[in-house]
Amino acid sequence: MANKPQWELLAEAFVNHYYSVFDTDRTQLAALYREVSMLTFEGNACMGASAITEKLVSLPFQKVRHQVVTCDAQPVLPESLNGVLVFVNGDLTVDDSNQPIKFAQVFHLLPDQGNPGMFWVYNDLFRLNYG
Amino acid sequence: MANKPQWELLAEAFVNHYYSVFDTDRTQLAALYREVSMLTFEGNACMGASAITEKLVSLPFQKVRHQVVTCDAQPVLPESLNGVLVFVNGDLTVDDSNQPIKFAQVFHLLPDQGNPGMFWVYNDLFRLNYG
Repeated sequence: MANKPQWELLAEAFVNHYYSVFDTDRTQLAALYREVSMLTFEGNACMGASAITEKLVSLPFQKVRHQVVTCDAQPVLPESLNGVLVFVNGDLTVDDSNQPIKFAQVFHLLPDQGNPGMFWVYNDLFRLNYG
Repeated sequence: MANKPQWELLAEAFVNHYYSVFDTDRTQLAALYREVSMLTFEGNACMGASAITEKLVSLPFQKVRHQVVTCDAQPVLPESLNGVLVFVNGDLTVDDSNQPIKFAQVFHLLPDQGNPGMFWVYNDLFRLNYG
């Protein structure tokens, strides 16, 4: 476990943070996107931190819990950008349901030049996988 | 449908080609990877066209069929590279099973500079989603 590549550690830290914010207060996700960020949510595309946050906040549930089952990561070209590609598979539980739904999500993260160690989401693609 | 962005059309064409080759003769997939290509298959990472093809050819089935259910795509920074991020969810049937298994796969494609319109796989992440 100690030998995990840096991008996997980064990916896990980011994903834990992202879903913790998502499950606590979705409005705060805006800080993780920028004007050029893209979200494709269940096939519907939108762009920019405001539109993306609006989409995520409008989802029809009050309570939500993401449970990460697998989190894979790879570095992305060009090396000068230090991007990380993250692929999450997990279970999602909403409101008072006790029936988790499987989801898969892809993030392409780029480093926040002004905040060493912090990343923002450039690409975000999300799909539910009904059983 | 006629208004789909170019990257979605590219993604669909690539994915159809990729799974057609995979399901017909996996050894031919080597042409779609390069020495810097990365595959994370069910959490196991390997690098380079040879190692990736060897991994895919060694999978323990004789017959396989990928059926794409959804194919999402987004362009990737920097624009000068013209990369495309592709996110596939689908069903996989192996040998004589009639029980498809759900899979999710991510490709980061880069254009083949020598062959306009052709792409190669830089990042490839694959997961099965058992129901």
